[in-house]
Amino acid sequence: MAYDSNNIFAKILRGEIPNDTVYEDERVLAFRDIQPQTPVHVLVIPKGEYESMDDFAENGSDAEIAAVFRAVASIARDHGVADSGYRLLANTGADAHQEVAHFHVHVFGGRRLGRMIRPARDDD
Amino acid sequence: MAYDSNNIFAKILRGEIPNDTVYEDERVLAFRDIQPQTPVHVLVIPKGEYESMDDFAENGSDAEIAAVFRAVASIARDHGVADSGYRLLANTGADAHQEVAHFHVHVFGGRRLGRMIRPARDDD
Repeated sequence: MAYDSNNIFAKILRGEIPNDTVYEDERVLAFRDIQPQTPVHVLVIPKGEYESMDDFAENGSDAEIAAVFRAVASIARDHGVADSGYRLLANTGADAHQEVAHFHVHVFGGRRLGRMIRPARDDD
Repeated sequence: MAYDSNNIFAKILRGEIPNDTVYEDERVLAFRDIQPQTPVHVLVIPKGEYESMDDFAENGSDAEIAAVFRAVASIARDHGVADSGYRLLANTGADAHQEVAHFHVHVFGGRRLGRMIRPARDDD
């Protein structure tokens, strides 16, 4: 599947849609989720056009992959949750409800985060 | 905090505790979680001694960080969930219930995965 350059994160990267940036470097942009699920809820994306975890793992450079990961730790420190704790989460595909076809990592923090995965239920 | 070389993953890496390995290379070991929460539930760890996401981000090399991430994508393909979807999750610290002080990533797949984060509740 070809990368869709009209996905919302592509538009954010081009400055066509505003965002609340919390971190940026040459390889990475991070901004607050517009529907935060926890007191700290930040999205971290590579600036390169990677639609999924698979795509990023296969076609991203070591430096790009490490940059995303290091940005997460930096953001956690900047938001005061490095010590209290935080969760990194990335979804790929339908079973995981990936909603935007540009690879992204969620960073959650600022409260106790509960179970990692709920038991299977009809509404899952 | 100094790395505790008696944590359970350190013992697994030394071969002192058995594990059900699904992937290994020079930098990474991955094995099935002994209490799987989904049909596919694999733990991916760097072989280097990193106690947390912070430690790994600060002291791990680009190659080590990329290796962990690429292993996740490879495991997803090997387990037939690359297309159906999967979730990568990593916890740091108390709020996120990090239970072993050696950095690790969970890979969940094989069914619909539900919400990423439950609303805050008393039992969180």
